[in-house]
Amino acid sequence: MQTNILNSDTICAVATPNGMGAIAIVRISGLKAVPIVAGVFQPSGKLKASLDIEKIVSHKAYHGHIVDNGIMLDEVLVTFFKAPHSFTGEDSAEISVHGSVYIQQKLLQVLIAHGCRMAEAGEFTRRAFVNRKFDLAQAEAIADLISSESEAAHRVAINQLKGGFSKELQVMRSKLLEMTSLMELELDFSEEDVEFADRGQLKALLQETLEHVNRLKDSFRLGNAIKNGIPVAIVGQTNTGKSTLLNALLGEDRAIVSDIAGTTRDTIEETLNINGILFRFIDTAGLRQTEETIEKIGIERSYRKIAEATIVIGMLDVTNGYESMVSSANEIVSKVDFGQQQLILCINKVDTLADQGEALLGQLRQDLDNDDIMVICLSAKHGFGLNDLYNVLKHSQPLASPEATLVTNVRHYEALLHASESLQSVQQGLEMNIPTDLISQNLREAIHYLGSITGEITTDEILGSIFSRFCIGK
Amino acid sequence: MQTNILNSDTICAVATPNGMGAIAIVRISGLKAVPIVAGVFQPSGKLKASLDIEKIVSHKAYHGHIVDNGIMLDEVLVTFFKAPHSFTGEDSAEISVHGSVYIQQKLLQVLIAHGCRMAEAGEFTRRAFVNRKFDLAQAEAIADLISSESEAAHRVAINQLKGGFSKELQVMRSKLLEMTSLMELELDFSEEDVEFADRGQLKALLQETLEHVNRLKDSFRLGNAIKNGIPVAIVGQTNTGKSTLLNALLGEDRAIVSDIAGTTRDTIEETLNINGILFRFIDTAGLRQTEETIEKIGIERSYRKIAEATIVIGMLDVTNGYESMVSSANEIVSKVDFGQQQLILCINKVDTLADQGEALLGQLRQDLDNDDIMVICLSAKHGFGLNDLYNVLKHSQPLASPEATLVTNVRHYEALLHASESLQSVQQGLEMNIPTDLISQNLREAIHYLGSITGEITTDEILGSIFSRFCIGK
Repeated sequence: MQTNILNSDTICAVATPNGMGAIAIVRISGLKAVPIVAGVFQPSGKLKASLDIEKIVSHKAYHGHIVDNGIMLDEVLVTFFKAPHSFTGEDSAEISVHGSVYIQQKLLQVLIAHGCRMAEAGEFTRRAFVNRKFDLAQAEAIADLISSESEAAHRVAINQLKGGFSKELQVMRSKLLEMTSLMELELDFSEEDVEFADRGQLKALLQETLEHVNRLKDSFRLGNAIKNGIPVAIVGQTNTGKSTLLNALLGEDRAIVSDIAGTTRDTIEETLNINGILFRFIDTAGLRQTEETIEKIGIERSYRKIAEATIVIGMLDVTNGYESMVSSANEIVSKVDFGQQQLILCINKVDTLADQGEALLGQLRQDLDNDDIMVICLSAKHGFGLNDLYNVLKHSQPLASPEATLVTNVRHYEALLHASESLQSVQQGLEMNIPTDLISQNLREAIHYLGSITGEITTDEILGSIFSRFCIGK
Repeated sequence: MQTNILNSDTICAVATPNGMGAIAIVRISGLKAVPIVAGVFQPSGKLKASLDIEKIVSHKAYHGHIVDNGIMLDEVLVTFFKAPHSFTGEDSAEISVHGSVYIQQKLLQVLIAHGCRMAEAGEFTRRAFVNRKFDLAQAEAIADLISSESEAAHRVAINQLKGGFSKELQVMRSKLLEMTSLMELELDFSEEDVEFADRGQLKALLQETLEHVNRLKDSFRLGNAIKNGIPVAIVGQTNTGKSTLLNALLGEDRAIVSDIAGTTRDTIEETLNINGILFRFIDTAGLRQTEETIEKIGIERSYRKIAEATIVIGMLDVTNGYESMVSSANEIVSKVDFGQQQLILCINKVDTLADQGEALLGQLRQDLDNDDIMVICLSAKHGFGLNDLYNVLKHSQPLASPEATLVTNVRHYEALLHASESLQSVQQGLEMNIPTDLISQNLREAIHYLGSITGEITTDEILGSIFSRFCIGK
């Protein structure tokens, strides 16, 4: 547990989104939260001029005015939350003001003049963690929850906040701890050559734990896709309508579209929520031979983007003729890793054809001769075929089961990766009859990594870096 | 008072600013607010699965979860406000959720599925007005309060919210009403040729009221400047550094600056808060002879902007030579109305001079021979002299006295203008011994206009147009 000198301060921040609205909330937490707020608040009605601090009821909304130096700042609602029954576990208050930017800023100034200091990013949540309101993985789930943009991302964050992931880690950790203490007991009695830990049971438990760790670790690919969006690269020759497709998908003019080949020099990323799944579309520079330096860099980046994507949409321009389309298709196919990636080829500009769309589609499918490739007809410009594309995308990724634990956080992923490596060393050690003290050392490492996820073992520096990623007021 | 079929609906909206934050508030108001919210809320702790609607305590923050169809949406705080002790005067609730955009939107969907409908802009405040929580001028003060960007604008809005303006109007209105009823009594007894109303007293009262109305009407110039910013036009020949000055004042690259004469084609407006006073800076196209159509339009607009401004900053380029500076200065001076406007001439680019800045300043002041013109030396590019300019601006406008009533609303201004005209007609009528019934008609008009400000007499259509300017959730 952290003891932190910062916690003696009383902190304040605007907790609601930036900008103007009907209401904004200013949050205060710390030892002096109640007297500071009571000192600038004049309740209305029977309570008259000032609140008796001793008689303040926790969780009750008081109506009144913020008055500083005799000047009324705003008509407000104030709710006090007495420790430990608050978000942070400290004495806290929430002031609900009219949502003018001026009032929000001025109220912070008034509170600071009365002894508060501005909260750092994530400081409220950090205090809640320090006061054991929740563990580190749950604290991180709050940040994910706030930034969740889709049903799936929201569900993963809610599950993590509920503590399912933390519990799984705790169970594994306590099993490993038990194992370690038995092994270390052997060390104490090493001269007597006893084995407290049954090696067979140990190996079975180890195998089970390793599998669990690996399952969690491997869930990161899906978890990350759910949190940040499934990466979809849109690739193809220049002027095949990649940007037009992106605009059509997003329903707005995000990418610059022109008839000049090579308009899109940089990659553009946009997210789109289709049926609760977030897709991250990556429009890339056209794949063509060029001497222009800036465009060359763009094309190299396109190739890298293909490698990073889970889904590749290959754009083919039907107006370039069938031969050209097949050679483009083959170039794209050669870049796709069908074990990890899905390819959707789009025959674009079919509005220029009379009726041959279906025939072309059949022929291309036959010539490519690869059942893993989806081929559809499109007119990105006129919106034709977009529904087919939406349907393919929608069914491209299974929604995770509502209760499955998914790892979405790079920090957690890395800890699991290290834990997995340490456990594998333990396994090898047991096989090779390596001395118990070395094995025990590896076990302790694995326990450390698992514990770092929930914050059982975490340095102040790491905490700082985690909470500074939060928004102010959280 | 309005009876409004809309009021039977229970409405909901996000009340906090748009976007992501630590916390967002969803507000619900109407007959079914309590059962709808209780139906999707599971309190935590002793209260267990559901709230007993009968036992809900008003103004108490309940901790728990929003659960819809067995799926937990978020951990929340819910505060119920029972009628009439709520903002709207109706049964209401505020749900404090984690500020993810997804959660905010999803919660609205859940509430709508349970019988709410989305609130229209300003509908919460409109209901408060209908339930006599405050009058129309106070309701409008809330909108002004939320959008206030400076101390002065905030103070004017708070004063209006406190009801001082409304009270002044009511006092005038009731005096006029008394006068009218006396005059109309005369009409009833017209055959007997009696005078219930003392004509001398009547004239004195009328004069007093008219002066009061005119004082309020005339306060609009200052009130509007405080609310929307004091308009400051920056004018001068092309390439004298107008945009550079604007950028320097604002501390960011808002206007495009280049060395090509005539870069700024359109006018750019930016507001800056100096010592609690809001200034609205207007960067204009350079004043030069041009044949280019687009630029010509820009220059015409510059002349119009000079006419609208309260303060004119004239930029002179010292590198063009003294002769050119004087002729530019004279051109600008010829456009300024010194009765209504203040002129500050800035000798810019003084960094190119050795030491002659002060001498030039003195000479220009002498040659212009006009004590109403402020002249200062600047280097907009290097930030030299900016403090002098800030100081001149800061002292250019008196801050209104904290208690003075200022009219800031165009609707109020127009009503006062009409009331003033009607009262003048009454005055003329009394002088010219026009028949009492015609005078009484004009008096009734004046009363109507004054009453329309606070909403005593207001059609549903006008109400709709007033409240639709509010933000959603207010």
